[in-house]
Amino acid sequence: MKTVLKELESIFGDRLYTEPQILALYSREASSESGRLPLAVVYPANPDEVVELVKTAIKNRLKIVPLASSTSLSGNTVTKEEGVVAVSFEKMVKVLEISDVDWYARVQPGIRVDELNLELSKYGLQWPVDPASARAASVGGVIANGGGGVKGARYGPASHWVLALEAVIGTGDVIRVGCSTVKCREGYNLMQLFIGSEGTLGIVTEATLRLAPLPQSFVGVMSRFQDVMPLVDAVIEVRRSRIWPTVAEFVDREVAKLVGLGEGYYLWLGCEVTPGGEKNMLNALSNVLSSRGEIIAVASSLGEFNKLLEPRRRLYSAQLNAAFEDYGTDAFLYIEDIAVPISKLGEAVKAIETLARKYRIKYAMGGHIGDGNLHPAAWARRSDEEEMSRVRQFYLEVGRLAIKLGGTISAEHGIGTHKKALLREAATAKGSDVVLKLMKELKRVFDPYGVFNPGKIVD
Amino acid sequence: MKTVLKELESIFGDRLYTEPQILALYSREASSESGRLPLAVVYPANPDEVVELVKTAIKNRLKIVPLASSTSLSGNTVTKEEGVVAVSFEKMVKVLEISDVDWYARVQPGIRVDELNLELSKYGLQWPVDPASARAASVGGVIANGGGGVKGARYGPASHWVLALEAVIGTGDVIRVGCSTVKCREGYNLMQLFIGSEGTLGIVTEATLRLAPLPQSFVGVMSRFQDVMPLVDAVIEVRRSRIWPTVAEFVDREVAKLVGLGEGYYLWLGCEVTPGGEKNMLNALSNVLSSRGEIIAVASSLGEFNKLLEPRRRLYSAQLNAAFEDYGTDAFLYIEDIAVPISKLGEAVKAIETLARKYRIKYAMGGHIGDGNLHPAAWARRSDEEEMSRVRQFYLEVGRLAIKLGGTISAEHGIGTHKKALLREAATAKGSDVVLKLMKELKRVFDPYGVFNPGKIVD
Repeated sequence: MKTVLKELESIFGDRLYTEPQILALYSREASSESGRLPLAVVYPANPDEVVELVKTAIKNRLKIVPLASSTSLSGNTVTKEEGVVAVSFEKMVKVLEISDVDWYARVQPGIRVDELNLELSKYGLQWPVDPASARAASVGGVIANGGGGVKGARYGPASHWVLALEAVIGTGDVIRVGCSTVKCREGYNLMQLFIGSEGTLGIVTEATLRLAPLPQSFVGVMSRFQDVMPLVDAVIEVRRSRIWPTVAEFVDREVAKLVGLGEGYYLWLGCEVTPGGEKNMLNALSNVLSSRGEIIAVASSLGEFNKLLEPRRRLYSAQLNAAFEDYGTDAFLYIEDIAVPISKLGEAVKAIETLARKYRIKYAMGGHIGDGNLHPAAWARRSDEEEMSRVRQFYLEVGRLAIKLGGTISAEHGIGTHKKALLREAATAKGSDVVLKLMKELKRVFDPYGVFNPGKIVD
Repeated sequence: MKTVLKELESIFGDRLYTEPQILALYSREASSESGRLPLAVVYPANPDEVVELVKTAIKNRLKIVPLASSTSLSGNTVTKEEGVVAVSFEKMVKVLEISDVDWYARVQPGIRVDELNLELSKYGLQWPVDPASARAASVGGVIANGGGGVKGARYGPASHWVLALEAVIGTGDVIRVGCSTVKCREGYNLMQLFIGSEGTLGIVTEATLRLAPLPQSFVGVMSRFQDVMPLVDAVIEVRRSRIWPTVAEFVDREVAKLVGLGEGYYLWLGCEVTPGGEKNMLNALSNVLSSRGEIIAVASSLGEFNKLLEPRRRLYSAQLNAAFEDYGTDAFLYIEDIAVPISKLGEAVKAIETLARKYRIKYAMGGHIGDGNLHPAAWARRSDEEEMSRVRQFYLEVGRLAIKLGGTISAEHGIGTHKKALLREAATAKGSDVVLKLMKELKRVFDPYGVFNPGKIVD
């Protein structure tokens, strides 16, 4: 093992750490999951060092777990394996190029989403992939995890906002896939394979991101409902009126309490508008909302709307706080991440409430209701195996509910280790088990020595 | 061979044709390319028949070329091989489901894009993938070819508008990939591999398409410029003002003549607007346009704009007519399909004009200027080897120009046979030859017996 560390040191110099107290930081993720300590953590400064790292790993049969900000919620970044080198991209955080004409940005993988967007805002541009964790999440992590977020209903997921990638695959080769242009037809779409591959196919060392202009004008409404059904009905009616909100978020009664809102279910609708169209849009929204619920506040700019949305942005920390309040440091929090077709949302929310009662689960729910993406969170005392097992069963049945309703077991958090079993069930339900075999073969094509993030997605 | 035909007949009954005059129809495509007559053409009625076909092909070492409407422009659908069964989807043209709440449609692959959109318009919805060939092109063909079209600048390419696919792969297995929801994180994105795979990995038998609402209001402007530079400058300035047009199309002086417009370069800009914002948007557009060119016409609805756009829609037939006028049935027309970053458009157009002079080429150009996608077309007398070779050299150098300017050798027409050499050059220019090796390995994973559309994309 000493020789291996020497080899790594010859690549990374003082950007190699082996101290357990440092390594411990790289064996945890936001999912409350923790793993085995890696052998070392390294901080590459450029793609060449990543190539050297992969070659060293092949030679010494090491594994590599690429890490971004470890905001992962599905066990994607922690590992139980021995002989793992964690790779952190904290030293590769540069914006390499922004083109305000071409609407793209070339960036290194370690830059945080919010920091990038702050820089882009100077050009009137945005990278419209907006996970709740945007303050912490890195662009590389969002790409590896195929992130979605608050603007997904309108802008779609991360996969629509990446133009090109540079990555090091499991042979140590550097590949450059995709184009600088939105249209790009250069053979099979290898780039899309990397988006959402959770670091199992290679390590992204540079990304060219597609950008959108910041909206010229924006209006929004925050409203409250006594039940979830009229709330869902409002979302449906908005779509029927051909209004296409950028943001359509909700929280349930439990979350509302936790974040200090009054009794009820809350819905935020935010829309980009052409200057001059603000009044029409607000009228259209309030026509739909006021017959079904109560309008709490109106925003006449993106800034105002973001302020209104602030309690919704606290969803995850509120769920986490509730868990800690109940169980202290013994708390374990599962954040679910299903999506169902919009027309099934009412049924889904009701069924989740029923499951929570059945398993006597402490839970709270919010989500990106505009794209059917629900995040129920359940918590348990980690040391209470009986309670943990009820929570796990709840988690599993929520996934099965998504399958039954024609939805997906994972909308934006990925498979990691948590959802490998559900991925099999989803494939089987579609009558398409063979896709798992194909995924294993693809893994072998890109990572023939099994170097990257072992045990994730498929075995 | 007789036994093979018997086997095929037992699957397809009277939906099998072997008459040469019928087969001839399936050995041509819109690119003016023609291939060898297939052994037979079959018309499956359901996925099961496609499975049987693939199994028969494996057993008898036949090849399968899936055909949509053969509007292909890169040699994607014709073949020089023997023992080919052409598969036409003319009997699988159904819309299986439209959800006006979930904004998706499940369709069979043979339905034409315009027919689908006519049906969707009854629900106020659209599939916003709008190739110039939309009247003829089938949804399956657009997916196989990763099509783009007129709305690409705003809506992106076909790959953003497909949610799920059912396909038969080269082992005879049926796979179902993707979800009914926009967010979908079920392992590696196999679905995206199929989009743009030109029928080389499998046969799509059903598609779930993501839909968008038809715009509530739409305005547009048609304008004329004396030179291409101020036209490009207008496109750039529009982007700088954070206006994001749905349509930004242009034609050059040659096309303008061919379609009966007056002298000059023409630009069409069309924008979706919030009701009430029409005047503001038109003012903003005309501020940019009137200082650089001359506004010819203004549209205050999508219908009006589509009428204005009609000469631009005739680009391909105008180029074709010009070729036929010069050379009659001996004409060969090459339609190029590069894209460059918007900031490089002026340089690209000028360089193409220079190349055309250098090679003494008859040519005309238009394109989707809003996403940098240029379609210069050059024509030659098919029997004049010297002229044909100049045109081929022009075609190659236009591709190289795209590479040099950081663009792509194919924006939306694909690789087929025409661009295999350029695909290699593009990969080499990116320092990433290994991607071609990876593509071959992916081909083997999905089509281990080499059944599908031989000789396309990679060897």
